Amino acid sequence: MKALVFRGPNQIGIEDVPVPRAGYGEAVIRITLTTICGTDLHILKGEYPVRPGLVLGHEPVGTIHELGPGVNGYEVGQRVLVGAITPCGQCHFCLSGHWSQCGGPIGGWKFGNTINGAQAEYLLVPNAQANLAKIPDDISDEQVVLLADIASTGFSAAETADLQLGDSVAVFAQGPIGLCATLGARLKGAGLIIAVESDPKRSEAARRMGAHFVVNPEKSDVVSEIKRLTGGQGVNVAIEALGIQRTFENALRVLEPAGTLSSLGVYSGKLEVPLDGFAAGLGDHKIVTTLCPGGKERMRRLMDLVRYRGVDLAPMLTHSFSLQDIVKAYHFFGERRDGVIKVAIRP
Amino acid sequence: MKALVFRGPNQIGIEDVPVPRAGYGEAVIRITLTTICGTDLHILKGEYPVRPGLVLGHEPVGTIHELGPGVNGYEVGQRVLVGAITPCGQCHFCLSGHWSQCGGPIGGWKFGNTINGAQAEYLLVPNAQANLAKIPDDISDEQVVLLADIASTGFSAAETADLQLGDSVAVFAQGPIGLCATLGARLKGAGLIIAVESDPKRSEAARRMGAHFVVNPEKSDVVSEIKRLTGGQGVNVAIEALGIQRTFENALRVLEPAGTLSSLGVYSGKLEVPLDGFAAGLGDHKIVTTLCPGGKERMRRLMDLVRYRGVDLAPMLTHSFSLQDIVKAYHFFGERRDGVIKVAIRP
Amino acid sequence: MKALVFRGPNQIGIEDVPVPRAGYGEAVIRITLTTICGTDLHILKGEYPVRPGLVLGHEPVGTIHELGPGVNGYEVGQRVLVGAITPCGQCHFCLSGHWSQCGGPIGGWKFGNTINGAQAEYLLVPNAQANLAKIPDDISDEQVVLLADIASTGFSAAETADLQLGDSVAVFAQGPIGLCATLGARLKGAGLIIAVESDPKRSEAARRMGAHFVVNPEKSDVVSEIKRLTGGQGVNVAIEALGIQRTFENALRVLEPAGTLSSLGVYSGKLEVPLDGFAAGLGDHKIVTTLCPGGKERMRRLMDLVRYRGVDLAPMLTHSFSLQDIVKAYHFFGERRDGVIKVAIRP
Amino acid sequence: MKALVFRGPNQIGIEDVPVPRAGYGEAVIRITLTTICGTDLHILKGEYPVRPGLVLGHEPVGTIHELGPGVNGYEVGQRVLVGAITPCGQCHFCLSGHWSQCGGPIGGWKFGNTINGAQAEYLLVPNAQANLAKIPDDISDEQVVLLADIASTGFSAAETADLQLGDSVAVFAQGPIGLCATLGARLKGAGLIIAVESDPKRSEAARRMGAHFVVNPEKSDVVSEIKRLTGGQGVNVAIEALGIQRTFENALRVLEPAGTLSSLGVYSGKLEVPLDGFAAGLGDHKIVTTLCPGGKERMRRLMDLVRYRGVDLAPMLTHSFSLQDIVKAYHFFGERRDGVIKVAIRP
Repeated sequence: MKALVFRGPNQIGIEDVPVPRAGYGEAVIRITLTTICGTDLHILKGEYPVRPGLVLGHEPVGTIHELGPGVNGYEVGQRVLVGAITPCGQCHFCLSGHWSQCGGPIGGWKFGNTINGAQAEYLLVPNAQANLAKIPDDISDEQVVLLADIASTGFSAAETADLQLGDSVAVFAQGPIGLCATLGARLKGAGLIIAVESDPKRSEAARRMGAHFVVNPEKSDVVSEIKRLTGGQGVNVAIEALGIQRTFENALRVLEPAGTLSSLGVYSGKLEVPLDGFAAGLGDHKIVTTLCPGGKERMRRLMDLVRYRGVDLAPMLTHSFSLQDIVKAYHFFGERRDGVIKVAIRP
Repeated sequence: MKALVFRGPNQIGIEDVPVPRAGYGEAVIRITLTTICGTDLHILKGEYPVRPGLVLGHEPVGTIHELGPGVNGYEVGQRVLVGAITPCGQCHFCLSGHWSQCGGPIGGWKFGNTINGAQAEYLLVPNAQANLAKIPDDISDEQVVLLADIASTGFSAAETADLQLGDSVAVFAQGPIGLCATLGARLKGAGLIIAVESDPKRSEAARRMGAHFVVNPEKSDVVSEIKRLTGGQGVNVAIEALGIQRTFENALRVLEPAGTLSSLGVYSGKLEVPLDGFAAGLGDHKIVTTLCPGGKERMRRLMDLVRYRGVDLAPMLTHSFSLQDIVKAYHFFGERRDGVIKVAIRP
Repeated sequence: MKALVFRGPNQIGIEDVPVPRAGYGEAVIRITLTTICGTDLHILKGEYPVRPGLVLGHEPVGTIHELGPGVNGYEVGQRVLVGAITPCGQCHFCLSGHWSQCGGPIGGWKFGNTINGAQAEYLLVPNAQANLAKIPDDISDEQVVLLADIASTGFSAAETADLQLGDSVAVFAQGPIGLCATLGARLKGAGLIIAVESDPKRSEAARRMGAHFVVNPEKSDVVSEIKRLTGGQGVNVAIEALGIQRTFENALRVLEPAGTLSSLGVYSGKLEVPLDGFAAGLGDHKIVTTLCPGGKERMRRLMDLVRYRGVDLAPMLTHSFSLQDIVKAYHFFGERRDGVIKVAIRP
Repeated sequence: MKALVFRGPNQIGIEDVPVPRAGYGEAVIRITLTTICGTDLHILKGEYPVRPGLVLGHEPVGTIHELGPGVNGYEVGQRVLVGAITPCGQCHFCLSGHWSQCGGPIGGWKFGNTINGAQAEYLLVPNAQANLAKIPDDISDEQVVLLADIASTGFSAAETADLQLGDSVAVFAQGPIGLCATLGARLKGAGLIIAVESDPKRSEAARRMGAHFVVNPEKSDVVSEIKRLTGGQGVNVAIEALGIQRTFENALRVLEPAGTLSSLGVYSGKLEVPLDGFAAGLGDHKIVTTLCPGGKERMRRLMDLVRYRGVDLAPMLTHSFSLQDIVKAYHFFGERRDGVIKVAIRP
């Protein structure tokens, strides 16, 4: 089968690799739609190390091709969505409710990280019983593919922050994850939602996702502008969706006392806590982080939001490529050409 | 001033009573808009006892007429909303976060219960510092008056149930409180929302509030129909908004294991727990109850939902009466004439 | 092997049955210590139906005899504790964190209910990866056997009630579960703990578990006595550990406003909610129920409480029988002879 | 009356100041016992700025000397404990449940910070209705004085972390706050508790408070030692009770995935988040902070722990001084002479 293989930093290519076979408790799905994640770009650049020879990608939609023994309640041919995170459900961490940390730190993230991923014609799904989520007939592949990672991650920011009805929220950065965080804050019942973004297309998208104001960090002082919009008070919840020092520290600074910074970003280099924004540790602040929730039940719930609540992320798939052209797609997406938000990849 | 006075069971009338004066920590507001609650009907019928001579009503919108000493940060003439529940903020219960139980059981509910209420030209507000919520200029009296009780109560059902993103919900009865509960489930991020109601106008209103299906208990078996709509599984959260045995027990029966029954109803007579719906106590079920949350901060949050989230309850004010005609309005509302949902009362 | 087989209501006996074999994901353990549960008595009497031919018992301690394929990280011969509840970790309910309801209502309880149980020489453990909890060398079989069910269940009452530091607690009935509930309230940080019990030996045991007062329902009015002991206020948390109408309703009546009734009992017949104790639904009360939490991580945590916190339930094993004599033990335990609390059963 | 007055950095002295008078909603108490806090030392050194002329101290025990109008349910002469934090109960923050942030950042802390404090013969208590906690006759001043700040703060670490039954905990630094944090972890149901401390007397005290192991940071590598003691896994909750970079970063590094760092320290200078200990933001970690919870209900609960649970902090009052000698006591306490933990100050 064809698959996008990581050969080393800045080296990827389509290769022929064997179609995987399903062992006990596993399944193989034939991929019908996938996408490229910002994390894949980090891997490509060598910023997040994976082993050469690995098939990349962690956002799979497909049909069941083969079911290993011990996987019950499914049939070959069924359409399924699989989350980016594939917990086993049976380890210390899963049984503590920390499914994303399955087996150890960040251990729930397997596809395109520790095992072969979804940018391929076929994909081996481990712990299939816990991870194959059937797609209802009334929704399309395009409507669900972004649930696997960015929606699950983005929505989780408001969830982990335990956002309360009427809370004011600021969301820092409106890339794919940030846009979903904005939508998630709306879904969880935020009152005022302020997005922080300079790109005009993304600012426009932020408004569609539910932002009432968009603050442009290139044109105004973000902290004082958010304070102004909240009557001097600051927000209850600030969501960091970029992973850099500047947004992290501003997210703390715009919090009102006892506010929560909900962090989704992947940080590198140094990360400093600004003591002014942190009340020197006496402000009853919380800083919470979330790795994309996964597993079939999470996917089922997110699909219910698509079916019943009008959540429609398909417009975020602004461009489409065949799997054969995925290397081109990496460049197109990585260079943010033509206002691209997410690309559809079809084997 | 004119005020609607309770004289005894089935006896109410407009009387002249003295305008109240603000003592320390108190305020007097001039009422500009109020309404009649289903609870007022119970009081009128003698089903909920209050002392003869009491002014009824607990949903006040007005302007500040007089500020007692010790009330800071307000000015005479400001428009304010006051919640139906007026906690002191300083007793054992308030300091435990149980503001609605201020001072003792149901003690937060004072207006038209233990002290004079809002169906009058002027209203004395106790613990004014904790209870006067300024109304932003950009929203009208009509947009906020229903926040004082029915929205705060209705929304609380999903909040107390700790409704999670994508939860399925059934709301039993779509009177004013139930309609707000439906909207509250939507605001908190429910997936599928099923309303139970037989009245066609209320069923229609339920759909506008966010219900995806309305089950008519006169035409179908509610439990089996809700099971069918949820693929046999039942709902995560069932909201009881009527206060009778039938809806209470059905709300339990439609829960999936570990589901939560969030009860808003006021029960009388007998209340039995159906052991089948309760898994004999082994189902990890929860039954939670909520008395209308109050205080100025609650009102501020709800007004933010009006300002930013498009929550608009004004259409529920289907009819309008002058204070002079309030006795007529009681009958009109009590007999549910002309599809009335709530009545506006204007002194 | 020898096993205690249920033949029909009031008919049990030791029989020779085949030693089970471990299939994929399963394990067989050789039982070294088990016990009889109050639930087993219900089964014996036919009050809780199971299929004739079933081996009873759900509290297993033993050594690993055989490991099926796909079970990793264990070795034959290791000492293990297995919870009464054996979740799969991979179904809708488990992935929602409702492990006790694995697969459906009460579905996590398999041993001696839907599959063969622990009152035997050997036991087949399903989903072994999720359920085999290694016993540290420094603690004995006797110290852990009661963790499988009664400690896990009893402690959960305070946990599910979300008991806060300094909460006052009343625990209704001091049988094995109730005694553990008393200890659990203490472990979770209760202030005042009041036990309700008439049996002198159990009352004495309640004091050892942490009760500061024991109210005898045969000698005083339980509700007024608990009110008196709490300065008229009632308790924050009431735990029901018997499963009858009287204790359920009194547990509600002794709650202060916004208090929580945490129910462990298994109810039969009718169950009525006393509206006086429930403030007609307006008291912000909660009624929560819990089925014994299971899985290897739960067992590991409970064993840590034994190792580090001095939790020692071994004294509750007041009497000991060989497996050969288990029918006698059922009668002895069922008739509460000689102050028996729990019996040790040794194959 | 005599009072300890702050004149400027490193300048304090006993002065004669007028006895305060109780205005509306206020009370004056005659101090019978107070103490000196580590925070007072920071103020003395000019590290935390307060206005010259302020009376210091925030840990008052006394008898009611005068009750202003509007304070109900109390009598002159009653013994009372007042928390270090005195919330109004009626502002935006208090009505959000964030009492310590009353009125704005750190605003609940008034005594010896923004208004005159407790190191004096008399003390004016604002919002007396919310802050006077009657002391039961059966407990002494010495048993309750440390509840006002260090116990309330120390215990809150485990509470804010939402410590679960059987969680493993590490507590960094065993000064007065850290010792209370160790005890708090024990009270909330921790399994294994590891203290980090080099001072032998404090290490010994830590064991009495509930620590199972004490790791000496001068003799071993704290992170690897804690990992070793937890079987390589790390702890569920790490409590920072010192306020420096080293302990903050080590507290993060000893967490297992999805663990919580509960911070009590007051930080100065720079505070950096170690990305290794933070899994670059992907570890589902939480960092939570708490300012001492106050108000009369908090004090009541803590006194119940003294009455019923054997919490006895009186032994931490290792030395005693008269108010007249308080300047000497500041030096004695500041220089940690003679193994002092806390000093009793008696007017």
